[in-house]
Amino acid sequence: RINADRLWSTLTMMAQIGGTPAGGVTRLALSDEDRIARNLLRDWSLEAGFSCDVDSMGNMFIRRAGKNPTLAPVMTGSHVDSQPLGGNYDGIYGVMAGLELLRTLNDNDIETERDIVLVNWTNEEGARFAPAMLASGVWTGQFSEEYAHARADRDGITVGEALDAIGYRGERPARAFPIHACYELHIEQGPILEDEAIDIGLVRAAMGQRWFTITIDGFAAHAGTTPMPSRRDALTAFAELALKVEAIGYQHLPDGRATIGMANVTPNSRNVVPSRVVCSVEFRHPQSEALDAMEAALHQAAEHLAARGVNAHVERIFDYAPIAFDAASLARSEAAVAALGYSAKPMVSGAGHDTCYVSNIAPASMIFIPCEKGISHNEAERILPEWSEKGANVLLHSVLAAAQE
Amino acid sequence: RINADRLWSTLTMMAQIGGTPAGGVTRLALSDEDRIARNLLRDWSLEAGFSCDVDSMGNMFIRRAGKNPTLAPVMTGSHVDSQPLGGNYDGIYGVMAGLELLRTLNDNDIETERDIVLVNWTNEEGARFAPAMLASGVWTGQFSEEYAHARADRDGITVGEALDAIGYRGERPARAFPIHACYELHIEQGPILEDEAIDIGLVRAAMGQRWFTITIDGFAAHAGTTPMPSRRDALTAFAELALKVEAIGYQHLPDGRATIGMANVTPNSRNVVPSRVVCSVEFRHPQSEALDAMEAALHQAAEHLAARGVNAHVERIFDYAPIAFDAASLARSEAAVAALGYSAKPMVSGAGHDTCYVSNIAPASMIFIPCEKGISHNEAERILPEWSEKGANVLLHSVLAAAQE
Ligand SMILES: NC(=O)NCCC(=O)O
Ligand SMILES: NC(=O)NCCC(=O)O
Repeated sequence: RINADRLWSTLTMMAQIGGTPAGGVTRLALSDEDRIARNLLRDWSLEAGFSCDVDSMGNMFIRRAGKNPTLAPVMTGSHVDSQPLGGNYDGIYGVMAGLELLRTLNDNDIETERDIVLVNWTNEEGARFAPAMLASGVWTGQFSEEYAHARADRDGITVGEALDAIGYRGERPARAFPIHACYELHIEQGPILEDEAIDIGLVRAAMGQRWFTITIDGFAAHAGTTPMPSRRDALTAFAELALKVEAIGYQHLPDGRATIGMANVTPNSRNVVPSRVVCSVEFRHPQSEALDAMEAALHQAAEHLAARGVNAHVERIFDYAPIAFDAASLARSEAAVAALGYSAKPMVSGAGHDTCYVSNIAPASMIFIPCEKGISHNEAERILPEWSEKGANVLLHSVLAAAQE
Repeated sequence: RINADRLWSTLTMMAQIGGTPAGGVTRLALSDEDRIARNLLRDWSLEAGFSCDVDSMGNMFIRRAGKNPTLAPVMTGSHVDSQPLGGNYDGIYGVMAGLELLRTLNDNDIETERDIVLVNWTNEEGARFAPAMLASGVWTGQFSEEYAHARADRDGITVGEALDAIGYRGERPARAFPIHACYELHIEQGPILEDEAIDIGLVRAAMGQRWFTITIDGFAAHAGTTPMPSRRDALTAFAELALKVEAIGYQHLPDGRATIGMANVTPNSRNVVPSRVVCSVEFRHPQSEALDAMEAALHQAAEHLAARGVNAHVERIFDYAPIAFDAASLARSEAAVAALGYSAKPMVSGAGHDTCYVSNIAPASMIFIPCEKGISHNEAERILPEWSEKGANVLLHSVLAAAQE
């Protein structure tokens, strides 16, 4: 059993780093807050006798040595970055539970056959730098390092510059090493487990995602002197597109999701008809065919904006395939749940996770715990200490079982 | 006759201050660029022997003394601030033409009966600080100085702080003094004069304006885990509102205008259903009754958003009444046009101007020149040197006639 109080106290400490007045956290990838959280994680790890390596994407690998260094290690972990005005558990819970797991093994003087590696993936959220899961994507061969280092935030700062700025660009290339099994523990970020009063989600699959950047170019004009029919208004065109994107989501109920999370207006002045809107669009669905249909509908909607005298350019920046997790990995978690006397159900994740990418190169699966009302990507994200404890225990026994093989 | 080359060269110099790569200008009110433009205007004025006073709103009053200091002066002027990514003539043309007028009187050793005051009004555009015409509004008694000093930009910097930062908070209270007549020369910012190949617009009236700030509050949610029907999406609600605002404009053709120029999304992250959108709405029309109807329709549209589970708060921040200019003042410009052999037509301004406020306390009117394709509030704003010259000559003779009375 893990030490539930110690786990909760590390979560409470991490919640201070980037803490917001409303009780959430803004700890954007490679920001100063991220640096502080990383340093704390590293210091805790070194104090406990683990090693800590950083790769060229800033991914941190904390290793507790097993008996047999020639065997492939077992991996666990998640991410310490957050959304802007995000919650205190998304990502950081999986990292702190992984640390707690390693500390528990120390406390009980348990030697494992295999090394156990706790990973903190850089820029999982995709909030500061799009797309999400960028660094696990490089590590697993989805993206080149050059591509990833050149991704820029809103201010034009690249991932490479941001890594240097916080001192987290490691020497070792971000490239996968052999992994025996990988487990990520995460909050569900949806309402199902809490609604059904189930302790643990055994995640068997994750939805696919397609992300787009849309640039709508109209023509700036004076709001007082430009008659309505003469306008080429990028903002009203954007509004038309936004309602169509929403409709595409509704056309793919119950599983489809269509979201515009970001929109930036130029010149963004009250008495100027906007010349430009740059926005995101993202679609999610468990089936690739549905994503194809959604993407086609987006292109059609964008082309239709020509009737408003504007030009809409659609760029796909992220194509994240639906995946299925490894059955043998899931079986270890199922066995752990049974041994611990918890309730569990199989689930599909609507959120993307680094471990989805890891599953392309190694046996992997995920463990979910409930979160209140399914609220996530929100300062109001909450979990109960007992949920936290149960998830970490399932993680402990899943990882331990694999590490003794 | 004014010196057309000198006028053009001052415009060219001013276009460097805040000049943008695309050939426009970003010289926001009370920014460092504004300070530099003000300093240049002041230095040129002092060199030419004029006095320069600054009031508590940063309004600059440059005075060329007449024979009789007890008579009310004649006023002319406009503003040196610009929109973000704005043009090289909006406002600055009227100020530089006023300076040229005073220099021309010097060159010709013309003594006037009355003083002539060239004014540079602070924050005409309303881009950095809403509403527009803020400082002429204080000067003419529309707004209190406390209210105006407390208006804040997007970063929370107030007008009072910004005045201090650039050293343009004068001692003298911003309060009107007696004015015999006031003329503002400005680009039309619409296409009519160019389309009809007319030199001069004699502005007899200006449309009313109503400006609003709308805050739409939904609930931040994870874009992957939150089913479409469970969302309280502030952005899709905003999109619905934006199309309704556009429709309100179309319902009041040909004169009605409805514009959303500004929208800011929170948290503005690609994979978060937005919790909040704050946007502007503005309506314009020559008739107050039509503005009332537009405002009522806005409230209805905002209330309708409750069906989406969001709350829309509508705040009116600016109520700018339609005005008619002074017939006697217009007559002097008409006489000038005739004497100079130019063509002219009476016009209504869709844009607001400081001189609309001045017309509440003194006889006032405006003179327009064409601008290419009516493009304004855009970096592509252009005028021809000969248009510039003709407008300045009409201004010269309008002001001179009044100043000799
Ligand atoms: N788990 C999570 O919130 N990941 C961020 C990427 C996504 O939006 O799916
Ligand atoms: N003339 C001008 O562009 N004024 C700014 C205020 C308005 O938008 O009417």
